[in-house]
Amino acid sequence: MTAIQKLEQIRDSRWFSNLTTIIIIAYASILGFKTLDEVESQYDMFLRFADYFVTIYFVFELAIKMVAEKRFLNFFKSGWNVFDFIIVVITLLPLESSSFAAIARLMRVFRILRLFTARPELKAIIDMLIKAIPSIIDIVILMFIIFYIYAIIGSFFFVDLPSGLWKDFLISMLTLFRVLTFEDWTDVMYEAMEVYPWAWVYFVSFVIIAAFVFFNLFVAVIIGEMQKLQEAEMKDEIHEDHLKLDILLEEVKALREEIKDLKDKDK
Amino acid sequence: MTAIQKLEQIRDSRWFSNLTTIIIIAYASILGFKTLDEVESQYDMFLRFADYFVTIYFVFELAIKMVAEKRFLNFFKSGWNVFDFIIVVITLLPLESSSFAAIARLMRVFRILRLFTARPELKAIIDMLIKAIPSIIDIVILMFIIFYIYAIIGSFFFVDLPSGLWKDFLISMLTLFRVLTFEDWTDVMYEAMEVYPWAWVYFVSFVIIAAFVFFNLFVAVIIGEMQKLQEAEMKDEIHEDHLKLDILLEEVKALREEIKDLKDKDK
Amino acid sequence: MTAIQKLEQIRDSRWFSNLTTIIIIAYASILGFKTLDEVESQYDMFLRFADYFVTIYFVFELAIKMVAEKRFLNFFKSGWNVFDFIIVVITLLPLESSSFAAIARLMRVFRILRLFTARPELKAIIDMLIKAIPSIIDIVILMFIIFYIYAIIGSFFFVDLPSGLWKDFLISMLTLFRVLTFEDWTDVMYEAMEVYPWAWVYFVSFVIIAAFVFFNLFVAVIIGEMQKLQEAEMKDEIHEDHLKLDILLEEVKALREEIKDLKDKDK
Amino acid sequence: MTAIQKLEQIRDSRWFSNLTTIIIIAYASILGFKTLDEVESQYDMFLRFADYFVTIYFVFELAIKMVAEKRFLNFFKSGWNVFDFIIVVITLLPLESSSFAAIARLMRVFRILRLFTARPELKAIIDMLIKAIPSIIDIVILMFIIFYIYAIIGSFFFVDLPSGLWKDFLISMLTLFRVLTFEDWTDVMYEAMEVYPWAWVYFVSFVIIAAFVFFNLFVAVIIGEMQKLQEAEMKDEIHEDHLKLDILLEEVKALREEIKDLKDKDK
Repeated sequence: MTAIQKLEQIRDSRWFSNLTTIIIIAYASILGFKTLDEVESQYDMFLRFADYFVTIYFVFELAIKMVAEKRFLNFFKSGWNVFDFIIVVITLLPLESSSFAAIARLMRVFRILRLFTARPELKAIIDMLIKAIPSIIDIVILMFIIFYIYAIIGSFFFVDLPSGLWKDFLISMLTLFRVLTFEDWTDVMYEAMEVYPWAWVYFVSFVIIAAFVFFNLFVAVIIGEMQKLQEAEMKDEIHEDHLKLDILLEEVKALREEIKDLKDKDK
Repeated sequence: MTAIQKLEQIRDSRWFSNLTTIIIIAYASILGFKTLDEVESQYDMFLRFADYFVTIYFVFELAIKMVAEKRFLNFFKSGWNVFDFIIVVITLLPLESSSFAAIARLMRVFRILRLFTARPELKAIIDMLIKAIPSIIDIVILMFIIFYIYAIIGSFFFVDLPSGLWKDFLISMLTLFRVLTFEDWTDVMYEAMEVYPWAWVYFVSFVIIAAFVFFNLFVAVIIGEMQKLQEAEMKDEIHEDHLKLDILLEEVKALREEIKDLKDKDK
Repeated sequence: MTAIQKLEQIRDSRWFSNLTTIIIIAYASILGFKTLDEVESQYDMFLRFADYFVTIYFVFELAIKMVAEKRFLNFFKSGWNVFDFIIVVITLLPLESSSFAAIARLMRVFRILRLFTARPELKAIIDMLIKAIPSIIDIVILMFIIFYIYAIIGSFFFVDLPSGLWKDFLISMLTLFRVLTFEDWTDVMYEAMEVYPWAWVYFVSFVIIAAFVFFNLFVAVIIGEMQKLQEAEMKDEIHEDHLKLDILLEEVKALREEIKDLKDKDK
Repeated sequence: MTAIQKLEQIRDSRWFSNLTTIIIIAYASILGFKTLDEVESQYDMFLRFADYFVTIYFVFELAIKMVAEKRFLNFFKSGWNVFDFIIVVITLLPLESSSFAAIARLMRVFRILRLFTARPELKAIIDMLIKAIPSIIDIVILMFIIFYIYAIIGSFFFVDLPSGLWKDFLISMLTLFRVLTFEDWTDVMYEAMEVYPWAWVYFVSFVIIAAFVFFNLFVAVIIGEMQKLQEAEMKDEIHEDHLKLDILLEEVKALREEIKDLKDKDK
């Protein structure tokens, strides 16, 4: 077994991905605790060590994955590898001592995103969501049209309401998003009804159209995609059955033809 | 190729519908920005120009669609064409200078609805929703019966509550709609319970019947219709398989009959 | 055609059920409007007339249904007929002039429930819900166990909180129901956390167990039953296919047996 | 019939599980009522009696189940038996007179959990939920990653907001959980937007990612598992049909082979 094959084996082994998972979770816990106790000098040392360790481990892991590839550039063909690469590179940027120190510290959080690549099951769910985008995109466009029309109408009529919830187009969009989640939407409505008594038509129609109908279409697509993932097997069987029935019909017809031949000869 | 055939080709081409989509979105963005910055004279000029441009483009596009039709009246046979026609005609009404100027400006928003006709996928979703109406109508009637009974009872007992949420029948309906969305429904309940301690029965039963049971039926129908759209293929296959199995059975029986003949002759 | 057959025909005709539907809706609208305008003497006259008319129409309709039955007692075999009968009888009770006048007036609202029997589609949905009870009952019991345990624990620890939301067992149940609908549940939690800092465990676990898991099971059953109603056809076909495949297999095996016979004879 | 067989029969009989169910429900009602009326001496006596009775009944029931087993240790092989055993043992601990008296009294509530083992249908639902864990675990991990990243970012930027909702990592998690349930989430957002006007991006993106997308995946899995439980029969049939079609194809091919033989011989 060559060295590359050995590395390939390590890369694909379950214990390697499990080790990465454990290291990421341990690191995430340390980061979480840090915000609990205020910055102690001794704890800070420990965190700095964990930081260095994870950085080195990530570089090391990425190196294995890169070397295990037969052709170096194949590595970047997988979207997930590029994703890993970007996270590790950002980690290595020497921002700590610069004026972006605060942001650099925050960037460490995104290392937890590497859990996606460490656990194949998570990759599958994310891949499924990406595949579902074409089904969702049209409903998102529909939702946007509804939001747009209601936001323009809302910011036209309700612009002077004292709460300032309809000050301009973008804030109206935010207010409508709030109504979509039913968050104190009657407060918004009652305020508008004081000036425009017909305002309930605007809000009730928006709730029915946006929240009841189109939001449920959106949910239906997500639930449908998830179930597709789970029911793939059954559907494949039904589809195969469909093809097999065609073959069967052909076979039986051929059979009948041959028996006819037999009969004709017998005469 | 005749001129009409050429127009037909243009009408059905993807780039034509994409061009229309881009123009509508650009125009919608301009309208959205307008409410952001307050009316500047220079910006207003630009908006006026965009307005004229879109009006002319829409008339032009509609003309192509009309002329491309072999018989002029066929154009109005499609509901979506009538929809386009009405929006364009409203756009052309010379209301700008009249006393309805404000409303005329608002009407421009509805031009974004033309996105429906520009993107065939959106048309499909809307068509599906229209087809789903017969399935939904009975649940809507049921919901209405429940709302009606609770509104009459509510406006009978709670009419004098200080919040005025049960002042008359229509306001009671609105209050119940609010309870359906769980929006501060306990505030409404606690107020009623101060006078009628049994009022929790009224509210809890309404939440269970209207929100838990019937609202979920409504959601189930919408989700069902959406899934039908996605699973149509599988169902068609199952249905075809059903018919093919019948043919197969017939074939096999005929086969058996013929073999019997063969046997009888052999004797 | 005998008189009874004619009555039977009338009873089953669509126009008869449509007429009943229209009369009920018209009557319901009148009742609704009444609470809008305060009691005017002239309007009151009209309402009284409508009241008498509907009472007479209902008795008349019920009589037709009773007489159309071949054996009188068969009428009461259908649960829906009993339902109709009870509503009409309550309507006829001479309570108007008694001290129960207010309640009697309210009872008129329940006449709208007769829409169920007038529209066969509504009957189908209600029948489906009744059939779904055995599937739901166990989840309702599970929900009750969860509510019970949390209510006992809640009324044990939080009994002295100033809001009085945990005063006794039943009020604790109502408070938990409110938490289930997410209605200002954090207010309840923050109040409890001031005395018991661990209270978030109680609330978060309740929300996850009761609202996320078991409530969704409940929704799943209702959605499932609704889809069963719509997919019955497909399932029937799959089941029939299953039986047909068995017959096919038998047939083909018999065929093979007979060909073996043929072969043996040929030797 | 030996004594053990008789006990086995009793253990598996419906009336025995129904008796247990009734006793548990009666006991639960008594406990519920107790918190209603404040501690009366006479009622307390009754409760104490009920307590003793249920304790003795549970020990008795457990004994039957243990003795009915052919080999004593088989009893502990069922997870549900261990569950029963633990509840009964805790009940028997002599904590009443100790300083843990209050907690001991509270522990009685968990006896209602024995309803799970008394009703087989409830066991089935719980078993289904346990079986669904592998499908849910990955979505829970995904949810946790999203919560984690948003909590770190939130407690980094919003730590000094006067409401103290982002004081440390754990409280930020709780605040995000609240946002997930849409509970007054705009109050949290508006407070953050006063200091950081871009905060709406943080909240709207969290609501869309966590509540709209991933929460619905979670719901989809639960609904899917529930439907699997109900549709198991149909899927089994489809799967069987799949296998039968294979057999059919084999059979028909064999048939054709034999007819070929016949033909060849005829020549």
